Amino acid sequence: MTLGIAILGAGRIGQTHARAISATPGARLVAISDPFAEAAQKVSDAYGCDIRSIDDIAASDDVDAVAICTPTDTHADLIEQFAKAGKKIFCEKPVDLSAARVKQAIATVEAEGATLMVGFNRRFDPDFMAVKAAIDNGSVGDVEMVTITSRDPGAPPPAYIKVSGGIFRDMTIHDFDMARWLLGEEVQTVVAQASNLVDPEIGKLGDYDSVNVILRTASGKQAVITNSRRASYGYDQRIEVHGSKGMAQAQNTLEANVVVATADGISTPPLMNFFMTRYTAAYANEIAAFVTAVNSGQPTPTTGLDGLKALELADAALEAAQTGKAVTLA
Amino acid sequence: MTLGIAILGAGRIGQTHARAISATPGARLVAISDPFAEAAQKVSDAYGCDIRSIDDIAASDDVDAVAICTPTDTHADLIEQFAKAGKKIFCEKPVDLSAARVKQAIATVEAEGATLMVGFNRRFDPDFMAVKAAIDNGSVGDVEMVTITSRDPGAPPPAYIKVSGGIFRDMTIHDFDMARWLLGEEVQTVVAQASNLVDPEIGKLGDYDSVNVILRTASGKQAVITNSRRASYGYDQRIEVHGSKGMAQAQNTLEANVVVATADGISTPPLMNFFMTRYTAAYANEIAAFVTAVNSGQPTPTTGLDGLKALELADAALEAAQTGKAVTLA
Amino acid sequence: MTLGIAILGAGRIGQTHARAISATPGARLVAISDPFAEAAQKVSDAYGCDIRSIDDIAASDDVDAVAICTPTDTHADLIEQFAKAGKKIFCEKPVDLSAARVKQAIATVEAEGATLMVGFNRRFDPDFMAVKAAIDNGSVGDVEMVTITSRDPGAPPPAYIKVSGGIFRDMTIHDFDMARWLLGEEVQTVVAQASNLVDPEIGKLGDYDSVNVILRTASGKQAVITNSRRASYGYDQRIEVHGSKGMAQAQNTLEANVVVATADGISTPPLMNFFMTRYTAAYANEIAAFVTAVNSGQPTPTTGLDGLKALELADAALEAAQTGKAVTLA
Amino acid sequence: MTLGIAILGAGRIGQTHARAISATPGARLVAISDPFAEAAQKVSDAYGCDIRSIDDIAASDDVDAVAICTPTDTHADLIEQFAKAGKKIFCEKPVDLSAARVKQAIATVEAEGATLMVGFNRRFDPDFMAVKAAIDNGSVGDVEMVTITSRDPGAPPPAYIKVSGGIFRDMTIHDFDMARWLLGEEVQTVVAQASNLVDPEIGKLGDYDSVNVILRTASGKQAVITNSRRASYGYDQRIEVHGSKGMAQAQNTLEANVVVATADGISTPPLMNFFMTRYTAAYANEIAAFVTAVNSGQPTPTTGLDGLKALELADAALEAAQTGKAVTLA
Repeated sequence: MTLGIAILGAGRIGQTHARAISATPGARLVAISDPFAEAAQKVSDAYGCDIRSIDDIAASDDVDAVAICTPTDTHADLIEQFAKAGKKIFCEKPVDLSAARVKQAIATVEAEGATLMVGFNRRFDPDFMAVKAAIDNGSVGDVEMVTITSRDPGAPPPAYIKVSGGIFRDMTIHDFDMARWLLGEEVQTVVAQASNLVDPEIGKLGDYDSVNVILRTASGKQAVITNSRRASYGYDQRIEVHGSKGMAQAQNTLEANVVVATADGISTPPLMNFFMTRYTAAYANEIAAFVTAVNSGQPTPTTGLDGLKALELADAALEAAQTGKAVTLA
Repeated sequence: MTLGIAILGAGRIGQTHARAISATPGARLVAISDPFAEAAQKVSDAYGCDIRSIDDIAASDDVDAVAICTPTDTHADLIEQFAKAGKKIFCEKPVDLSAARVKQAIATVEAEGATLMVGFNRRFDPDFMAVKAAIDNGSVGDVEMVTITSRDPGAPPPAYIKVSGGIFRDMTIHDFDMARWLLGEEVQTVVAQASNLVDPEIGKLGDYDSVNVILRTASGKQAVITNSRRASYGYDQRIEVHGSKGMAQAQNTLEANVVVATADGISTPPLMNFFMTRYTAAYANEIAAFVTAVNSGQPTPTTGLDGLKALELADAALEAAQTGKAVTLA
Repeated sequence: MTLGIAILGAGRIGQTHARAISATPGARLVAISDPFAEAAQKVSDAYGCDIRSIDDIAASDDVDAVAICTPTDTHADLIEQFAKAGKKIFCEKPVDLSAARVKQAIATVEAEGATLMVGFNRRFDPDFMAVKAAIDNGSVGDVEMVTITSRDPGAPPPAYIKVSGGIFRDMTIHDFDMARWLLGEEVQTVVAQASNLVDPEIGKLGDYDSVNVILRTASGKQAVITNSRRASYGYDQRIEVHGSKGMAQAQNTLEANVVVATADGISTPPLMNFFMTRYTAAYANEIAAFVTAVNSGQPTPTTGLDGLKALELADAALEAAQTGKAVTLA
Repeated sequence: MTLGIAILGAGRIGQTHARAISATPGARLVAISDPFAEAAQKVSDAYGCDIRSIDDIAASDDVDAVAICTPTDTHADLIEQFAKAGKKIFCEKPVDLSAARVKQAIATVEAEGATLMVGFNRRFDPDFMAVKAAIDNGSVGDVEMVTITSRDPGAPPPAYIKVSGGIFRDMTIHDFDMARWLLGEEVQTVVAQASNLVDPEIGKLGDYDSVNVILRTASGKQAVITNSRRASYGYDQRIEVHGSKGMAQAQNTLEANVVVATADGISTPPLMNFFMTRYTAAYANEIAAFVTAVNSGQPTPTTGLDGLKALELADAALEAAQTGKAVTLA
């Protein structure tokens, strides 16, 4: 079958998904919706799809699924609207900044028997998938320790910080999901330290820009997450899994795989600098996985529960950083 | 404007170009042609284009350009047919295995005022482009020595060897073009050694599978090319340029950028194993460059003359390998 | 001048220092002392020095300095004895497992106007020195975050664990010293998590084998330390410093700098597997720095206070791991 | 037994061997000889050996072996003098610049039943030894192609060029020996190209500074050697062996194994810049191998014949470069 998909939101992530859907066998981009007519038109022109309102999309017979790419504070409402409309749902992370609201949305999804996949794109990065494969095929043995380094090329503007939910819910949330995925066991204990070193404006807004978190499971497995809102050398995204038999590492992605050696030393280009460039393949794979799961009637590889668990870890890390005390999850 | 393109030949390289054309802004895949109906149908289904005969394509008003992806021995005839039909022409390398026939085709192209770009895809590989940029921006100073390593994962079957024109015209021809592009000066002298080490069947057919070539320009710049029809570890494609100020290297491309460390050692995945996977970006960039050049009325980045020069170097290298004497080009 | 040095303890670290002293210009190995006659004889034969008792060494006019390489529980006594004897003192870490006893020994050293250097060999590793240089020359800007990965190839036997003082005082203590050295600011807050994943015997003895620690200074700089008593792939020793302008990393040291590529993948040899091999250059540089400092009348690069500070961090990390609460240092 | 060794020549290579001999178990540095009293004194002071004349050394009962580190034009005479004196002989490469004189010296060595090892230090480099081990243990299968890159950091002064015998006999000679060692089969055919690109003064003296050579054995195995008298980024020394099962590479040696990443890119320090630093371990291993062979009565790992074979390849490459014709060795 060919899955008819509509995209809600024609911003940069919506555009990325439009391209990915157009290139995915078994999927067809049916419609785009955005309050800004110009943005919607641009996607329509590029990929030959209709422009429709959100309510029209909910009522469209040729739309089997939606990709929610709107601002975070609309995600939960839209999930509930489209769950009730009987559409398969792909939603960008986070579902909501409030764990209570996320639980409510998940309850609605379950009550309607709907399908919800949350966009944790990093699980679909080829390099991170190769690390996961090294766990799954036994190369590293039993997982003992996970190390995740994630540094943004630069801090977002204060306007974004204000609505972001803070670094743990906005940035570290990806790493919490990766940690759960790689540890293979739920986290029980969280300790954290958080500083404001990059941009004083971030501190004035009550947020942090430099954090370290240790997660620990009931059996004693641990994950360390290092985040900074600054990395002059590009978008620093590394993962390391250490197990009883060995270690698997995903290394950074350079702009080009070249070396220039002169009297000044030996150098490579910087890291890819932008998350949408760095994770181009991950975004494409993520949409393909959604399409494959829906078309085959299988569960989606991520769910609303994954979104909830990551958010709960973010809330716990914030509390741990603020109190200096280990926070235990239920 | 949007360039209407038809593809002649629905084999694997034709399919690659079909995908690239579909994804290129400013271009539209209008038609596919192939004597095997099934192959043409597959491309038509995947990218929504017509199926037409070659003569229909030559007569089609909605076709502005063709991509010739048919067997080598048809290239020159098709170039001449479409030059006369007033179509812009992209042709896979080589133009022909006979330098005389190539010259004739080029003469026809010139007489008709036609446009011919020859598919030396490696010039469009992002890593090799970064090496070229290191030359052009002065990082390596004046180019002195170029080293090109090119090893295929495995030898082609005897049936292919028979029609290939031999290793120098079939495989090394890419490296001759790269050497010309990187040296920035025409080659004057060629010495070579050629052996049969990989597959005795290749030797029985009078061809070689393991060759080394030294090229030298009038000013004394040198390029070394190392070719083998065997590389168990993947498709080995490296370039190194050494100049008065330093060196630039393009390194190999791994299947994934991960490291697994165990008691057995520290390992990465093999190299990408197939030329169409390894050069995915190069093929896309190549088509985009053709479309951009034609749409803007600029010269194409490669021409029939580049095809001729590379073939003349192949002929010279074969003679040098067979006689043990340096061959001087006119 | 030539510094006459005696070594107390002819075990493996004593032997390492014997070799380093023999090769250091400006130093001469005068005597070795060890209760095991055979061990002392071996060093005497290899490097042509006398065998003397500890008391004889203390009374020897031709001995200007001693290197204390005896078991940990004798260090403080020997430091005091040789401080009173007017000898310059190099002592292996740790000074003692009790912070109170360390303070007492330091007090004696100060009262006698003696010289005490504590053997934090990693400060003298060429790669770590290059990282420190990248801080000192401004390349990384203001230090913000430090990441230290230190994994032993295998767990020591239970007999050693019993007298080791536990993983924080025995193994992490090196990393605490590195963190202080690289942060350039004293640590104020410590959080930690500790598990027993490698060897259940270690857990039965009340110790851990897998720990993560976050250190934080008053200005918010942070260091993360990851330790494991297991690394099948060799002795894993990496340091990364992230600052306002960039990052500096010291990478691991392979047994040989070679790559073997086959159909099974691309591999290098494992990491150097033994701390004395991995840190050969560091041990030599450390002794040379002691000799240079003493001969020139300059302060030694490390002191008893460095030993005390590292031990206090170890005590704090242990408390933090056991209580789940951040520990604040005075 | 302990081998008493005297060094003839207290220049930089003599000093290197003095240090290596002093550190080698089973060897003792007995004497140094040099017409410049100051140079001899320096070695004597540093390592506590006698200063003697060459004739005294030849007559000394406590000297079992000599290391000849004098200027090239004295090597053959000294080899013959010490062969007749019954001393074991280690001689720096080359034995002589004339193949005829080398043959004569070898004849004398054989007539006297003497032992002669020629200093091809690169065979003893740990990385190159690991490549050789990958051949010997079957990892790369049957050797098919060898690639040797050797670039000096800078050109020597004209005064040295004049007495050097030219680039093939002075610089490439090391690579000829490596090629023979790695190919495992004698070379039959040589082609070469040589240019003057680095320093016009070298060209005025009739020598070259940029050369490429292809060597071929009777069975068709090939080796490529690339040499330049210029490498701004350090002493570029790489080896690659390609066989039926895979490839082994020895990579370059950095001054420190660190990476610094900033907005300008990601860089490492340059390569080690000086052959005596780059090959420190090789020089030590070479002397140890000489001592072990002599003390155990085994053949030395290299002989006068190796020196002769490398020189004959140098002569052939020069002829091939000058005539443009393949030169066949007897």
